[in-house]
Amino acid sequence: MGDRSLLVIVLAAGEGTRMASRTPKVLHKVAGRTMLHHVLAATAAAGATRTAVVIGPDRDDVAAEAHRVSPGAQVFVQRERLGTAHAVLAARKALEEGADDVLVLYADTPLVRAETLARLRAPLAAGAGVAVLGFRPDDPTGYGRLVTEGAALLAIREEKDASAAERAIAFCNAGLMALSGKGALALLERIGNANAKGEYYLTDAVELVRADGLPAVAIEAPVEEVAGVNSRVQLAEAEAILQARLRRAAMIGGATLIAPETVFFSADTVLGRDVLVEPHVVFGPGVRVGDDVVIHSFCHLEGAVLEAGVTIGPYARLRPGTRLDAGVRIGNFVETKASHIESGAKVNHLSYVGDAHVGAGANLGAGTITCNYDGFSKYRTEIGEGAFIGVNSALVAPVRIGKGAYVGTGAVITEDVPEDALAVARARQVVKEGWAKAFRARRAKDKAGS
Amino acid sequence: MGDRSLLVIVLAAGEGTRMASRTPKVLHKVAGRTMLHHVLAATAAAGATRTAVVIGPDRDDVAAEAHRVSPGAQVFVQRERLGTAHAVLAARKALEEGADDVLVLYADTPLVRAETLARLRAPLAAGAGVAVLGFRPDDPTGYGRLVTEGAALLAIREEKDASAAERAIAFCNAGLMALSGKGALALLERIGNANAKGEYYLTDAVELVRADGLPAVAIEAPVEEVAGVNSRVQLAEAEAILQARLRRAAMIGGATLIAPETVFFSADTVLGRDVLVEPHVVFGPGVRVGDDVVIHSFCHLEGAVLEAGVTIGPYARLRPGTRLDAGVRIGNFVETKASHIESGAKVNHLSYVGDAHVGAGANLGAGTITCNYDGFSKYRTEIGEGAFIGVNSALVAPVRIGKGAYVGTGAVITEDVPEDALAVARARQVVKEGWAKAFRARRAKDKAGS
Amino acid sequence: MGDRSLLVIVLAAGEGTRMASRTPKVLHKVAGRTMLHHVLAATAAAGATRTAVVIGPDRDDVAAEAHRVSPGAQVFVQRERLGTAHAVLAARKALEEGADDVLVLYADTPLVRAETLARLRAPLAAGAGVAVLGFRPDDPTGYGRLVTEGAALLAIREEKDASAAERAIAFCNAGLMALSGKGALALLERIGNANAKGEYYLTDAVELVRADGLPAVAIEAPVEEVAGVNSRVQLAEAEAILQARLRRAAMIGGATLIAPETVFFSADTVLGRDVLVEPHVVFGPGVRVGDDVVIHSFCHLEGAVLEAGVTIGPYARLRPGTRLDAGVRIGNFVETKASHIESGAKVNHLSYVGDAHVGAGANLGAGTITCNYDGFSKYRTEIGEGAFIGVNSALVAPVRIGKGAYVGTGAVITEDVPEDALAVARARQVVKEGWAKAFRARRAKDKAGS
Repeated sequence: MGDRSLLVIVLAAGEGTRMASRTPKVLHKVAGRTMLHHVLAATAAAGATRTAVVIGPDRDDVAAEAHRVSPGAQVFVQRERLGTAHAVLAARKALEEGADDVLVLYADTPLVRAETLARLRAPLAAGAGVAVLGFRPDDPTGYGRLVTEGAALLAIREEKDASAAERAIAFCNAGLMALSGKGALALLERIGNANAKGEYYLTDAVELVRADGLPAVAIEAPVEEVAGVNSRVQLAEAEAILQARLRRAAMIGGATLIAPETVFFSADTVLGRDVLVEPHVVFGPGVRVGDDVVIHSFCHLEGAVLEAGVTIGPYARLRPGTRLDAGVRIGNFVETKASHIESGAKVNHLSYVGDAHVGAGANLGAGTITCNYDGFSKYRTEIGEGAFIGVNSALVAPVRIGKGAYVGTGAVITEDVPEDALAVARARQVVKEGWAKAFRARRAKDKAGS
Repeated sequence: MGDRSLLVIVLAAGEGTRMASRTPKVLHKVAGRTMLHHVLAATAAAGATRTAVVIGPDRDDVAAEAHRVSPGAQVFVQRERLGTAHAVLAARKALEEGADDVLVLYADTPLVRAETLARLRAPLAAGAGVAVLGFRPDDPTGYGRLVTEGAALLAIREEKDASAAERAIAFCNAGLMALSGKGALALLERIGNANAKGEYYLTDAVELVRADGLPAVAIEAPVEEVAGVNSRVQLAEAEAILQARLRRAAMIGGATLIAPETVFFSADTVLGRDVLVEPHVVFGPGVRVGDDVVIHSFCHLEGAVLEAGVTIGPYARLRPGTRLDAGVRIGNFVETKASHIESGAKVNHLSYVGDAHVGAGANLGAGTITCNYDGFSKYRTEIGEGAFIGVNSALVAPVRIGKGAYVGTGAVITEDVPEDALAVARARQVVKEGWAKAFRARRAKDKAGS
Repeated sequence: MGDRSLLVIVLAAGEGTRMASRTPKVLHKVAGRTMLHHVLAATAAAGATRTAVVIGPDRDDVAAEAHRVSPGAQVFVQRERLGTAHAVLAARKALEEGADDVLVLYADTPLVRAETLARLRAPLAAGAGVAVLGFRPDDPTGYGRLVTEGAALLAIREEKDASAAERAIAFCNAGLMALSGKGALALLERIGNANAKGEYYLTDAVELVRADGLPAVAIEAPVEEVAGVNSRVQLAEAEAILQARLRRAAMIGGATLIAPETVFFSADTVLGRDVLVEPHVVFGPGVRVGDDVVIHSFCHLEGAVLEAGVTIGPYARLRPGTRLDAGVRIGNFVETKASHIESGAKVNHLSYVGDAHVGAGANLGAGTITCNYDGFSKYRTEIGEGAFIGVNSALVAPVRIGKGAYVGTGAVITEDVPEDALAVARARQVVKEGWAKAFRARRAKDKAGS
């Protein structure tokens, strides 16, 4: 499509009442991203020059998401719901600015691929006035049928207007459309509302284009790409399709997923080669995993970077801002957050490392906790290279443990520990002989008496 | 069925040898409930006036479960195994008391729905003598075939007695039956045992009813509802079907299940609207979840109430008696039990809160543990509104932390802490310069020498 | 096959470039075992007298795995890749030693069963010169077709040489072959390389055998057994098939898997009767589970023995060397390693028990941690029968807690505790009235000022 300019109009005003949600439909997420984000990402990958998003009234949240994902997007409000063509015309200003090609998409079809958008757009460069995306659902009931002759699209027939022969057509209208930019605005304005519902239908564009003597064509897409999401059941179906894609890509890229069906990725997860992911792992957004990393079962990662040769879990929870250098080992029941842990360091059991910097080769014993919060602010903990933190230690931030220092078991560390020093904070062990025997006798008697 | 009385007879005497279990088959569970419970719940929902449960000899456990679920149920023991009609007659006393309609069910078909039972019973009100539930299995081999003419049931033909034409019938006997209450006892007594096995077959009722000139009808049910559970493989299949129903209902009700196939409900789980459930979550019995609750991955809940806006997990384990008020936050590796946590309180990491009351807005640091057990009894912990519990604190119950009090890091609290006070229990930090360096040198030498 | 000797030649030299891995293909794992291990285990079960493994150059890792699994295996290196017959001839020395039957297998078909190998071998005893394993894939494209007449195999036709009629044959060559040992070496040496690729094809053996007037036969195997693994996607498919087998066997053996699709076994997992496994559980290698054990959700077991009536989890992680005697209870967020825990002992919450021996009936409170590592060596902890370890205790090994002793909450135990004694190590609780109120006022002011 080289140097042809492309205006993408994304219709995102649908109310989504079947979602039974206070959140607008297009902000529901699939693989960690809103549906709107997925569609905008696909249009960007398809080479959109400009993007217009049409939203419903009082939907600042949708507008904000559009701008977060595509800072340059123009957002238009559709005040009344008078049909799809009317919705597109809400972006009149964008259409007036002109473009070689115009693509009309829906924010509730999050699985459409950039390659498919490119195929849909291609006929315009060859002179077509309109191209319509079609698909072949298992059950075409309810969909408009695409009446074709070879590649030429003769008409889009709504089911209620279809003849018996037309109803037998399996090829259905997916709703996505490419329009020649030249004259697109005029064409849209010619669409009328002389129909039962009194609405302006975008599908009428086909007839008008053909009346103008321009070709209309139909392009077929896989069913899974154009399935619209109208309910939470369909949302889960879309999630399943996208997860299958992401898992397959991870495996082809050189990761072993022992049980792919139990591993959940975000759309932006990046995995290296010879990564091993055991069953039951969840990747939230923003995770990057280097080569030869082992992720045991029951890990939960979000906003974390794992360099080569890291091993985590089972039951490791990496929260945003975690950075694990090469060969780091995070064990079970360990939480990390906003912490940089340098190469070869180990946090093997039952620990919380938050707002910390841990030097290379340091060893944090079981039950190590960084006390980063005093009820008002967060503070940082520095642990030096090769330091050894004893079991059940609390490091009260802000605090610094020097290189090679030892912290004794069960310590509460409130002051900095110098390099190579030992810090202890512990009461002496006292033994009371026979106490336990007497205690049991007394308690047993209490219980008998009660 | 309005004012027609209904006697339900549930046959629960099957031994279930294919289960390879010491537990009787009907006490195996699906979605957190015994199969017997499921069937009794369906009969209750179908409007049973009286319920009789026929059990095997020496099965006090089955009798106890029947009474636990349906306190008014009559329990009868079938001493010998002489066929299904003989089993029904074990409930002779219940039949003598009479009812307009009699339903005969099996305790090992836990998926049958109340609506289906209502459909099965309906023909009786219209004068039928018997109604038989049929289904169309993928492979009818081994099942009795329902020989029908329109809605009329002509005969139930066991496979071994069936002609080639009859074997081609796909419509099979599910075993569930509705009998007109009037004369049901007499009818059952007329069933003979002149057959190869010398048993009394309930299916003979069809022939007898027709011989009396009364209509017999067949009612079709979905396969999944009438599949009997005879092995643990079938138990798992029943679980899968029921989970699919529960997941679908949750989504339609307004909950997002990112990966429904990884979420397991109990039959009594209640979810609010705009609840988000991440992958890999297990709901045991007795869980009620309010609106806008977020349940992160790897949570395990049982007997817990979560008010609106609560967030839990990942890796939160809520045990019975947990009550979380609005906006409470339970984080990772946290266990709660028999505890009421008031609005806005936070328990974010690595804690055990048992037999406790936590006031609104309190913050329990990582590693907070309520010591509720001394080897003999359990005691309660009270934490006041807005209290702040430092990291790695042990609260030795019975103990009370006042409103707004602070507990210092690493404390063992054995005495009550007044409102707005600070309690500390900690040894001073002592530093030994150079100790770690010397220690390493010594240990390295030891190792080299060994 | 009684007293017929059997030489198995396992071809394990494939490079597996589609795996995109530094690990050789045959060392990738399925159900916790390398693919090579699976094939060697099947050949052992099929009664192999001798085993030869043909590997690629510089693959000490593959040779080591072959010897680890089958200490008596002969390992041969195939220096050049000149076709399957050439690969088999790399084991010339093994062939020279002779055997009644020769089986040629591939190390990347890990799902083949011993029974199938026995069926493949059976025709040799009846005089066949060669037997070839066939299967019927959903899509035969790309496979060699087996041209048969009854049981007789006339030819293996590569797709590119096949006529239209032959391409319509659904019965395909799986590659596995049984050869009569007598003359096998001479036969293999007669195979030429006069073909497009200039390679020596094992499939030519069929033609040569028939030219010698000996019968060639085809034996059919289920598709799932002979699917070769060439990519990580296929590796995951093989894992899924094997897991389905293992789950089914566990259920038939008397274990309840509530959600079998979420439970992952190793090939060597042993489960007793009336074991209950909740959803989301992972069994690593070397786990043996006794009768009536309950495994709650989110458990991860490896190298562990659980005696009858043990209950673990949710969130229990049992590491290698864990032995739990009858009735032991391991609760949530607990890790055990190289520890023997005697009957009835309890470790219910947030603990790490490593290199320890725990006596019968002992109770380890939440947050109990054995400090088994000082940065250089591991040490053992002994906890006597009936001991009670208070919450948040650190036991610094080597250390011994006597029978019936009590350890006070929050203690760091560095010296042995006598039988029936109480050991405490704790600072006194000090209260500063009003401190928290003043602190909050000061911090709020700080924040306002910043």
